[in-house]
Amino acid sequence: MHPKHSASAPWEKAASHPAESKYLLTRLPNTFAKAFIPPLIKAIIPNLNNRSKNTMPLKIAQIGSDGHQNMVLDGIAHIPGAQLIACAKGHPDDTLAKVKAHAAFTAHTRLYDDHRHMLDTEEIDLVSICRPYSLNAEASIAAANRGIDIVSEKPVATTLKDLDALEKAVKNSGIRLTAMFGLRLSPAFRAAHQAVQDGLIGEPILATAQKSYRFGTRPDFFKQRETYGGTIPWVAIHAVDYTRWTTGREYTQVAALHGNLAHPDYPGCEDHGGMLFRLSNGGTAMINLDYLLPSTAPTHGDDRLRIAGSEGVIEVIDDRTHLIRSGAEPRDLPLPLEENFLVNLHGERTGTAPHIIGPDEAIKVTRLCLQAREAADTGNVLTL
Amino acid sequence: MHPKHSASAPWEKAASHPAESKYLLTRLPNTFAKAFIPPLIKAIIPNLNNRSKNTMPLKIAQIGSDGHQNMVLDGIAHIPGAQLIACAKGHPDDTLAKVKAHAAFTAHTRLYDDHRHMLDTEEIDLVSICRPYSLNAEASIAAANRGIDIVSEKPVATTLKDLDALEKAVKNSGIRLTAMFGLRLSPAFRAAHQAVQDGLIGEPILATAQKSYRFGTRPDFFKQRETYGGTIPWVAIHAVDYTRWTTGREYTQVAALHGNLAHPDYPGCEDHGGMLFRLSNGGTAMINLDYLLPSTAPTHGDDRLRIAGSEGVIEVIDDRTHLIRSGAEPRDLPLPLEENFLVNLHGERTGTAPHIIGPDEAIKVTRLCLQAREAADTGNVLTL
Repeated sequence: MHPKHSASAPWEKAASHPAESKYLLTRLPNTFAKAFIPPLIKAIIPNLNNRSKNTMPLKIAQIGSDGHQNMVLDGIAHIPGAQLIACAKGHPDDTLAKVKAHAAFTAHTRLYDDHRHMLDTEEIDLVSICRPYSLNAEASIAAANRGIDIVSEKPVATTLKDLDALEKAVKNSGIRLTAMFGLRLSPAFRAAHQAVQDGLIGEPILATAQKSYRFGTRPDFFKQRETYGGTIPWVAIHAVDYTRWTTGREYTQVAALHGNLAHPDYPGCEDHGGMLFRLSNGGTAMINLDYLLPSTAPTHGDDRLRIAGSEGVIEVIDDRTHLIRSGAEPRDLPLPLEENFLVNLHGERTGTAPHIIGPDEAIKVTRLCLQAREAADTGNVLTL
Repeated sequence: MHPKHSASAPWEKAASHPAESKYLLTRLPNTFAKAFIPPLIKAIIPNLNNRSKNTMPLKIAQIGSDGHQNMVLDGIAHIPGAQLIACAKGHPDDTLAKVKAHAAFTAHTRLYDDHRHMLDTEEIDLVSICRPYSLNAEASIAAANRGIDIVSEKPVATTLKDLDALEKAVKNSGIRLTAMFGLRLSPAFRAAHQAVQDGLIGEPILATAQKSYRFGTRPDFFKQRETYGGTIPWVAIHAVDYTRWTTGREYTQVAALHGNLAHPDYPGCEDHGGMLFRLSNGGTAMINLDYLLPSTAPTHGDDRLRIAGSEGVIEVIDDRTHLIRSGAEPRDLPLPLEENFLVNLHGERTGTAPHIIGPDEAIKVTRLCLQAREAADTGNVLTL
């Protein structure tokens, strides 16, 4: 960790054993952790609840505005003490207009042309990074090397080389990296995840998932692989993530296809594709992706997931979670409340509940997508 | 053609140029054929409409009762002159109970223990073959060699060797082979096919299809690959067929997975799987299959198809056909009327409209499934 920041980050000072309180939660199975860890922490660290961690300052910075920066910005108002202390351009032409227009941006938010200058100047607890996708890894590595926790737009890197460098920087610094896998927090996907964890469909055997986007207007950096990264890592990554997370099974093999047939001005932006994964239990997962939803489509995303298991089928479609299970009438499951990403992450920081994305998962899922992209580029079946 | 049958089949005698009236229709594009061929035939063969082809005898035989024999039997009542003249056991223990209970079975229907004896004894125009799947090809070859037209349960063969032999027999005899791809006649799939042919979604780019069955009670011959053939050729073949037919694009490459995780007593019967096809236009098709629908599922089959094209998305789901197209409100398409398979085939025989399954397609689609099965068995990507 960068000495300055490791010493001065206020939330780290608050706990007797910051590393334990921060990471212990997420190394254990979710259900176990949810039930037993908060009381455990209270027992081990008696002072924890005597401190007002929820009202301590949480100094947040934003780099860039090409992504889902609102996932972090929207949460600031819900965390007492949280502030957007600074923001930096993601690239020289970045106006940061969307950040400046957000309520989290105040008269006290300092503006920087250069993110490295910002990282060196400000005392930052957590940085949100939303640059053109190929540039995110560089900023994350810079933040990690300075001991700053990171919320990165996904993919956290667009090449395996950058990903390896980022993984190393994260490991060396011990910072917390998470990625904007926003759909994990959607009520419908959380309900599906919980249903599978609770055994309602038995062993998950066949999963099928869909991402379907309108093309609309896309920035120029979408035109080249080098700057965009590809549609598997940018769009399908959500489904690669939520299918793995919901089934609770790893992918062991992938075959994939992708291409661009309808958007010739954007040759680096595949407008369709598909992935066929073997699951670690011998099952199958398939994910399809496209940018072919017409402008009149009632939805953007059209996120779907269906998991057929040994004892039932669960399906997320049209923001509902439907369960068909032997011995019971088919039914929609009750959905949990909407939850903000930053608030969820803050829960881990204050020791109340693990963050929904485990410590290694931002790197892991990005690597899976870069490997699937390679499978599609080469036509080979890859072992994962 | 077998001399006896080629000379005596009544429907062949009726037309001056039986071969032309029977096959010309199906070599031309569907829409062209539908619009121009019936008047053309009337012009070339002036006597055609003077003959009462619809009331000529159509002598039908049935072999076996392990399949969708009702697709043929149900149509007999709707074709004046059609009769079930004979039926033969599909295997020694076949009771033919379901055939005997059908209204098409009359006091005049003769029963045979041995199908070859029946084929040699009766004057048959058309035979429907529904034996345990690995045995269908043998009976089809026997019928082809005797000049008898065939409606075969799919897959028309369960090995590439049998399929090659069947293809040869069909070519040598010139008989008409069709397969029980019943879903081509479902109103929802016909509407989707027509919409794509009419250009309503532009170029088809990404197709995804689903077959999902209840396992229920399955015959013993489902337990071994040798007698069953596999779930890709038995279940997924419908989706392999309707996806190819609806998109109007060929498959050029396949990767696949399949396995059995929930039904260990039936090791030869894969209970799940998936196929990833490259389309001839560079697009992608994905098909998933399972036997995992619980007994409480409201549907059996759960046939779905979604095609995202350059100008719209069409989707068959829950027996509806939904269109999302640029510049128009999303809407369900009107569906054509239900049509019987035998009646549809008879339309081709009487020169009124081509049969919905082209002359080479029963062989072609079966071969695609056997290749996909091989891709799943070996883990290799196969060029088709």
